[in-house]
Amino acid sequence: MTHQTVGHPSHPLRPGLPDDPLAQVTEPTPHCPVEITLAALRGRWTTLVIRELLQADRTFTELRQALPTLSDKVLSDRLAHLTEAGVLDRSRRPGWPPRTHYSLTPAGRRLGPVLQALWDWGAQHQPPS
Amino acid sequence: MTHQTVGHPSHPLRPGLPDDPLAQVTEPTPHCPVEITLAALRGRWTTLVIRELLQADRTFTELRQALPTLSDKVLSDRLAHLTEAGVLDRSRRPGWPPRTHYSLTPAGRRLGPVLQALWDWGAQHQPPS
Repeated sequence: MTHQTVGHPSHPLRPGLPDDPLAQVTEPTPHCPVEITLAALRGRWTTLVIRELLQADRTFTELRQALPTLSDKVLSDRLAHLTEAGVLDRSRRPGWPPRTHYSLTPAGRRLGPVLQALWDWGAQHQPPS
Repeated sequence: MTHQTVGHPSHPLRPGLPDDPLAQVTEPTPHCPVEITLAALRGRWTTLVIRELLQADRTFTELRQALPTLSDKVLSDRLAHLTEAGVLDRSRRPGWPPRTHYSLTPAGRRLGPVLQALWDWGAQHQPPS
């Protein structure tokens, strides 16, 4: 005789949300599109590395020069994280010395509008102190 | 004789970025608009609570019913975090029993397009497994 809410579409379809079962989830799941995106952006420096690569492909050294207080270790970690998340690719260019270039994948380039939306909200909003 | 990059506008203005000194920051800062937004969204359940409040004002009990596996303690924490971030307001409604309603502030409602942008990217993108 208890009221069933789990596993039953007892809520009306929520207006303004994508017509997708994941928009109706009632607990956090790594498959939720919002979580996938936040996971890709996670970590200090991550959005700054993406910002640099939105401008142009970069070598490790160029990234270090653009972000001078970022350590080699953290930059390596962030590049590995973003590669694993499908956001960037590394490629070896011919020539001497051989240099590895980092570039955004098509999915990585689509993060441009996402960062813009995050920027726009934060720029309008000063949290109460 | 070293190449100066810090504290000197040696980079050309980066195309595609907002014309704002913060768009040129070279290290993470809590004043960066992107960081302000990510800080507001931080924490498991946070985006789901915002999603519920984008639909309508809710009481604590209504939020608990919409998100049945969310504990009272975590919901209280998230509501306090979002209030502090200027995303939501609480108001006492007349009547008996007195009930506290949670509603989004104007800034909170402007998170709708931000969550949509996060959703859209994650929905298009399946990270390589």
